[in-house]
Amino acid sequence: MRVTWDGKALDLKTVWMEGPTVRMIDQRYLPHELRVYVAESYKDVAAAIREMVVRGAPAIGAAAAYGLAQAAMQGVEPEDAAEVLRATRPTGHDLFFAIEYMLRAVGQGENPAKAADAYAALDEERCRRIGEYGERLVTDGSRILTHCNAGALACVDIGTVTAPLRLAHARGRKFLVYVDETRPRLQGSRLTAWELAQEGIEHVVIVDNAAGLLMQQGKVDLVLVGADRIAANGDVANKIGTYEKAVLAKENGVPFFVAAPTSTFDFAIRTGREIPIENRAEDEVLSVGGMRIAPEGVHALNPAFDITPAKYVTGFVTERGIVRPADVRKLRPGAARRSARRPAKKSTPKKRKRR
Amino acid sequence: MRVTWDGKALDLKTVWMEGPTVRMIDQRYLPHELRVYVAESYKDVAAAIREMVVRGAPAIGAAAAYGLAQAAMQGVEPEDAAEVLRATRPTGHDLFFAIEYMLRAVGQGENPAKAADAYAALDEERCRRIGEYGERLVTDGSRILTHCNAGALACVDIGTVTAPLRLAHARGRKFLVYVDETRPRLQGSRLTAWELAQEGIEHVVIVDNAAGLLMQQGKVDLVLVGADRIAANGDVANKIGTYEKAVLAKENGVPFFVAAPTSTFDFAIRTGREIPIENRAEDEVLSVGGMRIAPEGVHALNPAFDITPAKYVTGFVTERGIVRPADVRKLRPGAARRSARRPAKKSTPKKRKRR
Repeated sequence: MRVTWDGKALDLKTVWMEGPTVRMIDQRYLPHELRVYVAESYKDVAAAIREMVVRGAPAIGAAAAYGLAQAAMQGVEPEDAAEVLRATRPTGHDLFFAIEYMLRAVGQGENPAKAADAYAALDEERCRRIGEYGERLVTDGSRILTHCNAGALACVDIGTVTAPLRLAHARGRKFLVYVDETRPRLQGSRLTAWELAQEGIEHVVIVDNAAGLLMQQGKVDLVLVGADRIAANGDVANKIGTYEKAVLAKENGVPFFVAAPTSTFDFAIRTGREIPIENRAEDEVLSVGGMRIAPEGVHALNPAFDITPAKYVTGFVTERGIVRPADVRKLRPGAARRSARRPAKKSTPKKRKRR
Repeated sequence: MRVTWDGKALDLKTVWMEGPTVRMIDQRYLPHELRVYVAESYKDVAAAIREMVVRGAPAIGAAAAYGLAQAAMQGVEPEDAAEVLRATRPTGHDLFFAIEYMLRAVGQGENPAKAADAYAALDEERCRRIGEYGERLVTDGSRILTHCNAGALACVDIGTVTAPLRLAHARGRKFLVYVDETRPRLQGSRLTAWELAQEGIEHVVIVDNAAGLLMQQGKVDLVLVGADRIAANGDVANKIGTYEKAVLAKENGVPFFVAAPTSTFDFAIRTGREIPIENRAEDEVLSVGGMRIAPEGVHALNPAFDITPAKYVTGFVTERGIVRPADVRKLRPGAARRSARRPAKKSTPKKRKRR
């Protein structure tokens, strides 16, 4: 991604390797500071994933791939490092997908750093293709709601949700993105707004509570979100609040699309009920930027993800095409590829009348 | 309300008159500081309403009543003061209801301060009755979701949503309240959590995004919210995000009740589409406690209320009984009173199976 910082243009990835170190944009400090986190070992990478220095399922996958490469280069038994990395965050699937990829590559004698670079390049390529398949959803004059950050910062680069947005913007289309701020960690107002501002894509931040009103008023033409894990039946785990937007989209006749690479699909599980939902520290809810926003002694629940049943999903935008929930099984490794390519025409979002 | 502050027990109202001044708890500083705002004139009262020193439809109504009394006592033409007070906030109905009440009373030669005290006493009495009618909804072991603050701080005392909670608690029932934090102004985590903690009522704060997941998991037995204005057809204007919770409640079979006095019902308008929705400053979204949470230069939309169509409402808990949306017109002044008294048995929330 190209960003301008202190007047200088920089070309950055979310995560990369530099000599023996794994480096990543420290997303805890954006948009106020652009810091780079330096991991000296896979343990530092694991800490970075746990503490959300890096977040977003595909980016976590790439970070883990680099962490495993680093472990192999430092003489650590790959399975030992894998065990530590697997324990960082339970919900997103790319983490486990990337670890299996790296264990296989290293087991087959590949150069660890090259294998991790190849994994990262694959992630970028998937996003690029998601952009190509998805950009036709971003029609001229459309108003698109997104939740959390499924941008370049959630991947190695380009993003899943932002891939179609970037391409449509590059092709001269005008559209507006409503950015859910996405409490508690504010990935929308902190990260998505920052990315869209860098790209010059028109956007406006709203509190998560306001999305329903905008849909009811006929001001949203498309909801486009990312995913952390997708079950074989098309149920989607994504950032807490996604399920709310999906139900509201259905209630208001707004198409609801999920942009995700096949690395996020977990064909080993049948439905969303089997996806573990991470509960994070209550302080994420009770404080913002270190400032307490609730009385002392009060407690909070902080589930970090929710499950959107497949029935609310209009389609999945993947690197292999746009796929309806009923056809998710065709993305399973080994399934015939061509059937997933062409989306049904009727799943295109149409311009809706205002209320 | 009885609160403990710095180890001392205090009996407070949200707004009251003391000599020539109108005083109110300054809700901008809770839960960290308990400050009293002193209004020397109706213009200070208007500023307090506008700046949300006092908020919540019934409390705004009482503040306006005291402001008009103050104006009359200071020799200001009542209609001039009324015009300034009416212009403070457009959505809530009690403001306009209270102003009409006071203009009538003063026009009939009543003592202004006594008339305002009578209005405030009526507000308390309405809340007390809402508690009596509503407490049977708060069954033993139930889990109740609320949004924003419809507590004592939103009224003169007691509250609308909190009236049934207080009474059920006093009667020894055990239940859990999920408190939506309610972005952008955090009335849930700042005010509702504070009130419930003062009362010793079990509660836990959640981000607004998490309510859907809890309902989907079968962990919510009842949604109980307040209202800012209710149209003749039962459409409800309330704090932004209420509509989202209502749709999710319906989708998950959770009863959705609105606790509001008849002063919040506006029979002059037919549907929610006629209710003006206030848009507030974008800084409420882009900053929390003075700290910027989005990049500089980014903009926000900040609608402060949304409209929940009557079809999502199971019932209204009023001082005249629990009323179904189809029977709202029976609350109209002059309509036969008895028909509204007894709620239909089937509208009671039942214990639901966990998912």
